[in-house]
Amino acid sequence: MSSSSAPFRVGLLGHGTVGSAFHDLLEQRPDAIAAATGRRPEISGVLTRSRGDFDEILAGSDAIVELIGGIDPALDHVTRALKAGKHVVTANKQLLSQHGEQLEAAAAEGGAKLGFEAAVAGVVPAIRVIRETLAAAHVERVHGIVNGTTNFILTAMARTGASYDDALREAQELGFAEADPTEDVTGKDAAAKMAILARLAFGAQVSLADVPYQGIEDVTADDIAYARELGLSLKLIGSAERIDGGISVMVYPAFLYAGHPLSPINGSYNAVTIESPAITEITLSGPGAGGSQTASAVLGDVISAMNGPVVEPPPVAKLPIVGDVESAFYLYVEVADRPGVLAQVAEILGLQGISIKSVVQRGIGDDARLVMDMHPVLESRFRAAVDMIERLDFVRSRPRAIHVIEEVFE
Amino acid sequence: MSSSSAPFRVGLLGHGTVGSAFHDLLEQRPDAIAAATGRRPEISGVLTRSRGDFDEILAGSDAIVELIGGIDPALDHVTRALKAGKHVVTANKQLLSQHGEQLEAAAAEGGAKLGFEAAVAGVVPAIRVIRETLAAAHVERVHGIVNGTTNFILTAMARTGASYDDALREAQELGFAEADPTEDVTGKDAAAKMAILARLAFGAQVSLADVPYQGIEDVTADDIAYARELGLSLKLIGSAERIDGGISVMVYPAFLYAGHPLSPINGSYNAVTIESPAITEITLSGPGAGGSQTASAVLGDVISAMNGPVVEPPPVAKLPIVGDVESAFYLYVEVADRPGVLAQVAEILGLQGISIKSVVQRGIGDDARLVMDMHPVLESRFRAAVDMIERLDFVRSRPRAIHVIEEVFE
Repeated sequence: MSSSSAPFRVGLLGHGTVGSAFHDLLEQRPDAIAAATGRRPEISGVLTRSRGDFDEILAGSDAIVELIGGIDPALDHVTRALKAGKHVVTANKQLLSQHGEQLEAAAAEGGAKLGFEAAVAGVVPAIRVIRETLAAAHVERVHGIVNGTTNFILTAMARTGASYDDALREAQELGFAEADPTEDVTGKDAAAKMAILARLAFGAQVSLADVPYQGIEDVTADDIAYARELGLSLKLIGSAERIDGGISVMVYPAFLYAGHPLSPINGSYNAVTIESPAITEITLSGPGAGGSQTASAVLGDVISAMNGPVVEPPPVAKLPIVGDVESAFYLYVEVADRPGVLAQVAEILGLQGISIKSVVQRGIGDDARLVMDMHPVLESRFRAAVDMIERLDFVRSRPRAIHVIEEVFE
Repeated sequence: MSSSSAPFRVGLLGHGTVGSAFHDLLEQRPDAIAAATGRRPEISGVLTRSRGDFDEILAGSDAIVELIGGIDPALDHVTRALKAGKHVVTANKQLLSQHGEQLEAAAAEGGAKLGFEAAVAGVVPAIRVIRETLAAAHVERVHGIVNGTTNFILTAMARTGASYDDALREAQELGFAEADPTEDVTGKDAAAKMAILARLAFGAQVSLADVPYQGIEDVTADDIAYARELGLSLKLIGSAERIDGGISVMVYPAFLYAGHPLSPINGSYNAVTIESPAITEITLSGPGAGGSQTASAVLGDVISAMNGPVVEPPPVAKLPIVGDVESAFYLYVEVADRPGVLAQVAEILGLQGISIKSVVQRGIGDDARLVMDMHPVLESRFRAAVDMIERLDFVRSRPRAIHVIEEVFE
């Protein structure tokens, strides 16, 4: 029974929604935390824009919880804390996805632990499962729904047939989307999270700049209606996988077949599936970030830091980033309704070696459009074909392409 | 960088399917394990029925992995190892669900860690998430599908309309059910796992004897067909919840509404949902136990033991076991087709204060049966009514009752 009576001093940087929820949680459950760790936690200082001094807080803390967000001054504070041997827990995905290497080096230098469960998928403990349950496993692929705002919007569109704009407005009214939703709806938030997950899962250098992303702003009620007819669901998918000796990390909207493990994930929920040969796969799901959920994930990391010891980070390898991978696609083209239209579109696809699985022409006259399903093809070839199709004179607007994830029977 | 060069010596008790898979895994990935822990693991000895000496192995090991199964000699070996301060990892659910108190006391006495992820839900890291992610959280409820054999059988029945016997035979042929499937199909295996989960989640004394269980042997193709018509799925559910200042832990087949988080869990997969106010819920899913999956869960616990330190077990409280809780039910009664039958059945239900939601009479003459849905009622009242209905002279066989879990709109 090795309980120590010295309190565990936590310096808190930031006191917004998550910061104050974490502060409350820590003060509500000191006995439970002491039972789990042998030490009582206490907040040793709080830094906000208007009060507190970082150096003083650092000197008086055993660990730092960084909930300021953004790069400056978070990067400086976290780096200095780690180098000083203080454990750090952060929910800051920008910091991790853009400066992961610097932070890992600082942690190694100081012999400190960097916890970031709260940065990735709300309450879903993807980081812990990769780091601990699968500590020595070879992870082949991590994919999931890691942005609750976009999943809320896509779910609302599927349920009510609402337009993207109406569903976004509803999400904003209910607090599931911010006034400026750009980071979420463009896929950039999900891309940052996938960079963090890929870095950890593959022990490889990956940062936000390596992750191509496509968002959901162009998705229409028509696309969703098409999906529903075929029993598909439309999700914003983050995917990180080993491929051809390198890795591919991407974010894109995709149609999923009905039995896909991510297809029942609705509303603002997140889910992550981790695939590894020894275990087949583990899927984790739960609410995306809310203040209390994020605070709870932060507290879990603080408890881990209290329990020590330092787990050495896996060696980070330089694996090539594979930018061009095979996928099946759906293509939606608004066309003028006249003879030869389909033949010309088909010819372009054929020239790029793209095999068409099905074509439906919908509407007539000014409302005509082609809805096409393609067999898997290298994305670069498909994009080249779409560019050529867009330039045809009878095409009335930019064609819309969406990934399709089909059931694989092995 | 605190890596130690001394190897971490693992004594392995048992060398069957899981034992040898674990042995292989450890020998395949020593570098990855060393990267994650700073120490290289090695097997310091193997005990089987025909070779090895436990005392010798214990003296030469830093941790013991118990994969013998059963109570004797596993209970003796695990208890002695823990008291000697050696960490123990086990996949033995009988041991944990029947002797949890003795094992916890031994671990506390020796200051050793007891890992048992592999005992509960295949690759699904439910134990780690409860112990670590939710270390200081108040868990309200844990429920899930914790037996892969029965889920495989129910899924096969739903997919093909097969009878229980045929689906069981298929599961046996494919290796998803044992030659003697009693422990699985009666719900006893799931009950043992729920006792372990409940003990950990609530920090309360729960053992197998406290868990009433009902299996799937009586489920018919008719029940499944009924479920499909209404968009319900039938699963064997393990449930542990706080209720009226006590706890209720049970295993029973239940019809789930289509949007229920456990309804998409098919085949031999397991899933566990953990509910806590701060996080709402986390659902974890993945394949149920296979040799390599179980071995991987064991390895995850060994790595945690290598990383130490000892986490003090939460204090175990005596919470009353609540044996009688409210549930909605489905009732299937084979009856002689004559006037007044429904009136008499309805009268009995009414006398017990049970409100009928819907009744359908199916078939005619010798094939007539009543399929009824009841509003939620205390289980004891419902069972009393069923006993009375069974004694009616026009009832042709034992009525079948199955729980129904309906969507709650809050």
